[in-house]
Amino acid sequence: MGGKMISKNKLKELAAYRQQKRCDEEGLFVVEGPKMAAEALASGVAIRTVCAVAEWLSAHAGGMAADVVCEVSPAELERLSNFKTPNQVWMLVERSEVSVESGRLVLALDRIQDPGNMGTIMRTADWFGVRHIVCSADTVSCFNPKVVQASMGAVFRTRVDYVDLPQWLAACGMPVYGASLHGRPLGEVPAPGDNAVLLIGNESRGISPEAMTAVTHPILIPNRGGTAESLNASVAAGILLNYFIG
Amino acid sequence: MGGKMISKNKLKELAAYRQQKRCDEEGLFVVEGPKMAAEALASGVAIRTVCAVAEWLSAHAGGMAADVVCEVSPAELERLSNFKTPNQVWMLVERSEVSVESGRLVLALDRIQDPGNMGTIMRTADWFGVRHIVCSADTVSCFNPKVVQASMGAVFRTRVDYVDLPQWLAACGMPVYGASLHGRPLGEVPAPGDNAVLLIGNESRGISPEAMTAVTHPILIPNRGGTAESLNASVAAGILLNYFIG
Repeated sequence: MGGKMISKNKLKELAAYRQQKRCDEEGLFVVEGPKMAAEALASGVAIRTVCAVAEWLSAHAGGMAADVVCEVSPAELERLSNFKTPNQVWMLVERSEVSVESGRLVLALDRIQDPGNMGTIMRTADWFGVRHIVCSADTVSCFNPKVVQASMGAVFRTRVDYVDLPQWLAACGMPVYGASLHGRPLGEVPAPGDNAVLLIGNESRGISPEAMTAVTHPILIPNRGGTAESLNASVAAGILLNYFIG
Repeated sequence: MGGKMISKNKLKELAAYRQQKRCDEEGLFVVEGPKMAAEALASGVAIRTVCAVAEWLSAHAGGMAADVVCEVSPAELERLSNFKTPNQVWMLVERSEVSVESGRLVLALDRIQDPGNMGTIMRTADWFGVRHIVCSADTVSCFNPKVVQASMGAVFRTRVDYVDLPQWLAACGMPVYGASLHGRPLGEVPAPGDNAVLLIGNESRGISPEAMTAVTHPILIPNRGGTAESLNASVAAGILLNYFIG
């Protein structure tokens, strides 16, 4: 089963969602490719529009409302896509608030900039069952198309809040573990279990001085080699999450 | 101090090194940007050619032989660069074999495909002092420009061998720890310390059946969330390296 071929006007209207601002204003985000489309369908998120090539539609559009689905050519898909290599399907879906249990480990992110890192951190948190991420206001949006892609579906299962981070940390009432060059080596720090905050800093500048004042437990992943300057932020997040709740 | 402006012929000749094959044949690789150029200079690697904009040259080319250095315009740098956004300096350097101590932990990579993952794994290994990486023949080249960049200098400090991996693992005479869905949870496995091999598999297919036969200690990073399908390969490598030698 195919869909109705898309009109020129509709294509133009939807191509406007390549602007992140447009998505933000309307509380929507874009999901691309068969893998992430399957995650979206499985998550039960409200789907506003699906544009896909005939091949994808014939396999997946069976149960969808006809007015939601458009068939596009590969060239039309390219006009919608945020990627150099569009991949069969493009979806516009509604953002929804994921509810989280209180008293569980919260991941806090201070000024993470790279979309690949942000998505990988969300994917890693999802692996460890961490569903609540609190970010400084200038952290990259979790609805950035590259973040959505790298999250491998975590975006549908994670609550991500953007806040005044130093203020939030100071008021959260939980111990805050943050990576610092002056911290205690990881092996010497007992894992806090749940009811704690793990704070990860910017890729090149680390945790900001303002956020650092709220850190109650500075910790350090020892630099055994002595030559590398730093770890990638998503690798550091993975090591710390595994240490704390692996 | 600036350099001699590059000739059209020289530019054409050097632009040919955008082909990885050309670099492979001549035992060279390309290093780009001020950060990696500084790592190259500090490493003592043999530098064949430096092409840079006047600004970089005036600050860094003081001690370099005149016949090695060319000044280029931003447009000329763009013709040489492997990146969308070239960054001040392009260098052609010689590959050299890094010597490694025996009896130390060796990292083995089975079919890692993504250059960003490969570079990040090299960077993480460098952080933990792991200087020897053994790869299946179809793992991405450590001299791929994106790998070099993501390695953050580790490429100058790491010995990377490309081998028949199942054969190498079977003959290495060390215990081989490999991530497997049927492995023992990480927390239950005593860290082997040195004199062991840690094997990381392909991003989507994991460790190949052929390499898996050489794994003596299958291990598992527990999936506490129960929803994510997998971890990013470089995050998994970081967690395992930290567990084993952190």
